Amino acid sequence: MSDPQTYIYPGSFDPVTNGHLDIISRASRMCKQLIVAVGRNREKKTLFTVEERIAMLRESAARVADSAGRPGGGNIEVVSFTGLLADFARQCGASVIVKGLRAMSDFEYEFQMALLNKYLDERIETIFMMTNVQFTYLSSSAVKELALNGADISGLVPDGVQERIRFKVTSQRG
Amino acid sequence: MSDPQTYIYPGSFDPVTNGHLDIISRASRMCKQLIVAVGRNREKKTLFTVEERIAMLRESAARVADSAGRPGGGNIEVVSFTGLLADFARQCGASVIVKGLRAMSDFEYEFQMALLNKYLDERIETIFMMTNVQFTYLSSSAVKELALNGADISGLVPDGVQERIRFKVTSQRG
Amino acid sequence: MSDPQTYIYPGSFDPVTNGHLDIISRASRMCKQLIVAVGRNREKKTLFTVEERIAMLRESAARVADSAGRPGGGNIEVVSFTGLLADFARQCGASVIVKGLRAMSDFEYEFQMALLNKYLDERIETIFMMTNVQFTYLSSSAVKELALNGADISGLVPDGVQERIRFKVTSQRG
Amino acid sequence: MSDPQTYIYPGSFDPVTNGHLDIISRASRMCKQLIVAVGRNREKKTLFTVEERIAMLRESAARVADSAGRPGGGNIEVVSFTGLLADFARQCGASVIVKGLRAMSDFEYEFQMALLNKYLDERIETIFMMTNVQFTYLSSSAVKELALNGADISGLVPDGVQERIRFKVTSQRG
Amino acid sequence: MSDPQTYIYPGSFDPVTNGHLDIISRASRMCKQLIVAVGRNREKKTLFTVEERIAMLRESAARVADSAGRPGGGNIEVVSFTGLLADFARQCGASVIVKGLRAMSDFEYEFQMALLNKYLDERIETIFMMTNVQFTYLSSSAVKELALNGADISGLVPDGVQERIRFKVTSQRG
Amino acid sequence: MSDPQTYIYPGSFDPVTNGHLDIISRASRMCKQLIVAVGRNREKKTLFTVEERIAMLRESAARVADSAGRPGGGNIEVVSFTGLLADFARQCGASVIVKGLRAMSDFEYEFQMALLNKYLDERIETIFMMTNVQFTYLSSSAVKELALNGADISGLVPDGVQERIRFKVTSQRG
Repeated sequence: MSDPQTYIYPGSFDPVTNGHLDIISRASRMCKQLIVAVGRNREKKTLFTVEERIAMLRESAARVADSAGRPGGGNIEVVSFTGLLADFARQCGASVIVKGLRAMSDFEYEFQMALLNKYLDERIETIFMMTNVQFTYLSSSAVKELALNGADISGLVPDGVQERIRFKVTSQRG
Repeated sequence: MSDPQTYIYPGSFDPVTNGHLDIISRASRMCKQLIVAVGRNREKKTLFTVEERIAMLRESAARVADSAGRPGGGNIEVVSFTGLLADFARQCGASVIVKGLRAMSDFEYEFQMALLNKYLDERIETIFMMTNVQFTYLSSSAVKELALNGADISGLVPDGVQERIRFKVTSQRG
Repeated sequence: MSDPQTYIYPGSFDPVTNGHLDIISRASRMCKQLIVAVGRNREKKTLFTVEERIAMLRESAARVADSAGRPGGGNIEVVSFTGLLADFARQCGASVIVKGLRAMSDFEYEFQMALLNKYLDERIETIFMMTNVQFTYLSSSAVKELALNGADISGLVPDGVQERIRFKVTSQRG
Repeated sequence: MSDPQTYIYPGSFDPVTNGHLDIISRASRMCKQLIVAVGRNREKKTLFTVEERIAMLRESAARVADSAGRPGGGNIEVVSFTGLLADFARQCGASVIVKGLRAMSDFEYEFQMALLNKYLDERIETIFMMTNVQFTYLSSSAVKELALNGADISGLVPDGVQERIRFKVTSQRG
Repeated sequence: MSDPQTYIYPGSFDPVTNGHLDIISRASRMCKQLIVAVGRNREKKTLFTVEERIAMLRESAARVADSAGRPGGGNIEVVSFTGLLADFARQCGASVIVKGLRAMSDFEYEFQMALLNKYLDERIETIFMMTNVQFTYLSSSAVKELALNGADISGLVPDGVQERIRFKVTSQRG
Repeated sequence: MSDPQTYIYPGSFDPVTNGHLDIISRASRMCKQLIVAVGRNREKKTLFTVEERIAMLRESAARVADSAGRPGGGNIEVVSFTGLLADFARQCGASVIVKGLRAMSDFEYEFQMALLNKYLDERIETIFMMTNVQFTYLSSSAVKELALNGADISGLVPDGVQERIRFKVTSQRG
């Protein structure tokens, strides 16, 4: 049965940014369990594999939770999924989908997805949280573009992620 | 201390519509306690007094909860407030503000208010829920305009509200 | 009975602008009869009376039609109305409401009104036509603001309207 | 010569959805003839061939018209086209392009296309009709995504279309 | 004659906020002279008189310029104006109007004003600068609302302004 | 060192349109030097090579400047760049990025890019100028689509560009 206290936060996370981490941190304080769900989509070309993306999320989530003074990542779980999000949420027992919004730029698409998910399962709620304004310009693709061009991205991604991107970018070039 | 399971849903509710009631019903299932907070604003001209608005909300909230098969309005409380919402939320021990969004038309203003509330108290989260699409065109002012012109509004407001509006409109004319 | 070939174009027209006239001209070519309906709203403060607004619309509409090579205003009728537009459209036998859109700035409000009118009478359609781009910045209130400050508005309003505005503005000051 | 009573409704229709059918039904009541024009675009990858898309549209259009109590599809014609829509409209004698809008998400692109078509032929009008709110979340690509993942789409597409999608999806997998 | 190096930044500034000051500071570095123009509009009810608003702007502008290491306010002038901005810009010899945008919320209105000003005088350019994201939620009316309710606004307005608002608010109540 | 009087106007310009040229002309009057920077992006498929795009821009820029009564292109320079725009602007000594906005359709993306560029180098300003309303529907891709389908594009692109597009399109087909 679905639990109104289990939230699911879906995304590509290719890679996780400080904007994602801000949402993860804030959403985890609102529920009993937060499931961070990495979409496994064969058609979409990604820089990192699903496994690498999960690893980075787990490392980052653990640290964020610690900084709030609680034992690390106690209520955050990172998994992958395929197929429809509504189906996966039901399987996990999650009844609330969490989405972050950056200004209005993501709104229209997210609104349609939320209505679609409600059509598929009317017990599922989508809640929208605002991304911190300082991350308004931040997206995974911007981070990759910057790293590819040698810019400093240390303020944009969690610790450890910058090194992984640089390594990935270098090995792709080399 | 603020409880992450206490939500606050603020508004004018002049009068409550089926769109408001849909949000109240859905939000109440996500938290331990939902505080519906009616703004007491002397400068804004309203059709109903704060006390009338609270009475309509209480009647409506009780019935909605019943229809979900639970004892009526057990976790919904209707109160009035003055001053800043962030201050009132803190006094109530609420840490989550709930706002309903109709398509995108309310988004920009709500987004600024949410940022402002976060500036005032960074522990307060605002979550946005989508209004049911069938209520996209619905607002308290549209309801009043229709009632004033003799249209049937029975599908737009909770039971009992239509009679109160008609009475109010008739007595204002008479 | 409502005729799918009778259109209604509602507005305040305080005063008619070249943007309005562009819509009137184009819509009149699409239907058998176009009813231009001037809202009579006691609470809204206007520069011109309803009768003055109707007179300006009739003069302008006649000329536009002529320039298209047809006998003047043969299928355009200018009237006033009170109450709900959906009710008035039904009384006139009109089944299509015409609205002009300037870029996106009017869209959200108009969309809600169209949905509301469909709720009131599902046989009524609203069609949106784009305002000519050269009139994107044009509105009745901009025209009044400019005239009040002595700017040349001859390219913004139909012939005859500029004189009426100047006279009105001068007599209000005097 | 172009007839102001001949409308053209262009699209990919890959496949037709209940949202498209709603527009077809409503637009057909406003004009003498409605031409549903399926774009033949070699560069765009589609699930159905142009011929399959035309067949589904014809079947669906016939039934909708019947439900309105008139002989089936009497004024609806389904054809394919290549090249510029403005050119094709002129060839068909159509002077009005019909577009459906879902909330505001389609508006900006459609607005630019309408201006472009007016630049190409100033006698061509584009009218926008609102998609029924219950179809706000509906698009051909959402339908395909759902069908691909085994969801029930019977309420989203006309009768007969669901079977065709399932068959197509199964044969593509197999 | 108009100078392309003279900019004009118009507004109500009731009162100046840190968001305004950010634009003033950045725009002043782009031009030879920046004219900050306070609109004198009798119909609009303001908290501060035009003279008070000018005084606060002058104090604030002087300090900002200093912090950039240049002698205070050397190229910033604060004045009031009535009538049309386009006329006033011409009188000042300014050919560029500067406007700050907060996310997209101000865009549509500002866009129409800019087009209108270009209609009035095609040599006048309007340039839009983005407000710093940390001021996205900030407006003069929000500042007044907060101060009226006793909130700390020291991070939202320049030094000295908070005291003036408090004094004004207290004297209005008393 | 960056000069506040050196502006940079980046884009793909595949090919330059009259909308681009309008911005180039107006921006060049506001600064000492305008650098038109053609992005060299190997992953993006273009109709024209970078060298062809530069040649068309130089020809067009020279003529526009002449028509304003000044010796041709005296302060306009056309170059190509790779990598991050912020880095290239710094190398050129440019401190202001110029972007044209068509109605609101480009706004959200441009806003994010501007914030990102400010993150990379806080001394860089982005200013937005409105595209002339008559070019609202105009884009390089629309121009290519029209030319590919044999439409007359002489009013949409600078002299000389139409011939080059036709030649390119014909040689690609042949």
